[in-house]
Amino acid sequence: MNRTIGIVIFDDAEELDWVGPFEVLTNACKDGDRVVVVAESEGPVRGAKGLRVLPDHTFDDCPPLDVVLVPGGIGTRKEMHNEVLRSFLLAQAERAEWTTSVCTGAFVLSAAGLLKGKRATTHWLTFDELRTHDPDLELDPDARWVVDGNVVTAAGVSAGIDMALWLVGQLYDPDHARLIQKYIQYDPAPPYQD
Amino acid sequence: MNRTIGIVIFDDAEELDWVGPFEVLTNACKDGDRVVVVAESEGPVRGAKGLRVLPDHTFDDCPPLDVVLVPGGIGTRKEMHNEVLRSFLLAQAERAEWTTSVCTGAFVLSAAGLLKGKRATTHWLTFDELRTHDPDLELDPDARWVVDGNVVTAAGVSAGIDMALWLVGQLYDPDHARLIQKYIQYDPAPPYQD
Repeated sequence: MNRTIGIVIFDDAEELDWVGPFEVLTNACKDGDRVVVVAESEGPVRGAKGLRVLPDHTFDDCPPLDVVLVPGGIGTRKEMHNEVLRSFLLAQAERAEWTTSVCTGAFVLSAAGLLKGKRATTHWLTFDELRTHDPDLELDPDARWVVDGNVVTAAGVSAGIDMALWLVGQLYDPDHARLIQKYIQYDPAPPYQD
Repeated sequence: MNRTIGIVIFDDAEELDWVGPFEVLTNACKDGDRVVVVAESEGPVRGAKGLRVLPDHTFDDCPPLDVVLVPGGIGTRKEMHNEVLRSFLLAQAERAEWTTSVCTGAFVLSAAGLLKGKRATTHWLTFDELRTHDPDLELDPDARWVVDGNVVTAAGVSAGIDMALWLVGQLYDPDHARLIQKYIQYDPAPPYQD
């Protein structure tokens, strides 16, 4: 009910990491809920694969968020040291119903202290790297997404779609999530099986 | 080798329809190949769910395309009557190695005459609607994507990811497609099964 779901982007964020959940969540929104794309500053944000996107809000004019989503991408390695981003996330997460990441977005949540004492996941190629930053983090290499309290971390890139569908089931109900899955025709059939 | 893959966007194009393939294809590109986002005019294009994107090229300065991809979205119902877009697509498709659509992007290909005498698919909700525009079109309601000659049409929204992976197997080889699938961790696990 009148929730604001904020997708926090930055330069070199991986495009599908957040556009997958964006698609799921914008389709799912009802009862006055909405999705906004947020970045530190005005002007185009350039993704890891070169897509240029205009955010809806900057950190300064961003409304309180009920759901926070941080995507991954090579830009996370810089952003994990961005004190402005970390403070923004901490402040938003404090009141948010859910705080989430996709892929190496977990690096940013970790750096902000939001994964302390939690189980989590990240892109399969980056488990060891994340452990060097946060040796105490309990990582689950087999999960598509991990829920610990109100923090949800998804595995690499496309796992954000599954995590977002799960979240729709929590924000509304599983039947609504099934409807959205059907609408985006998410009945995957990857070619070239091993 | 030095291919240009063009993703043609327009107002009210559905975001995941084209960002899914964008992610797959940008990750797959090698040998000087690249992906560009193309729109009729300069300035932000606003997607069906409100995402504002800056194109890399306009129709006027777009290089010759080797692969053309047209996404769906509610905007297709207007764009199918856009003579400038149809002429652009016809000219590009004439030389392209592959011409493709995702979801109701098939409405635009059909309106441009590019599906004449072909088998195709579209979003599952829009089969009857597409038949009213193109009664002779042979639609396959069960396929995730349909290949007819060098025209490939994908089913709704997320089906573009599968189609793009298939295309990577054709442009390069199936092993490369499997590598990209693994990189984007496309091992889908939708929650809330029936």
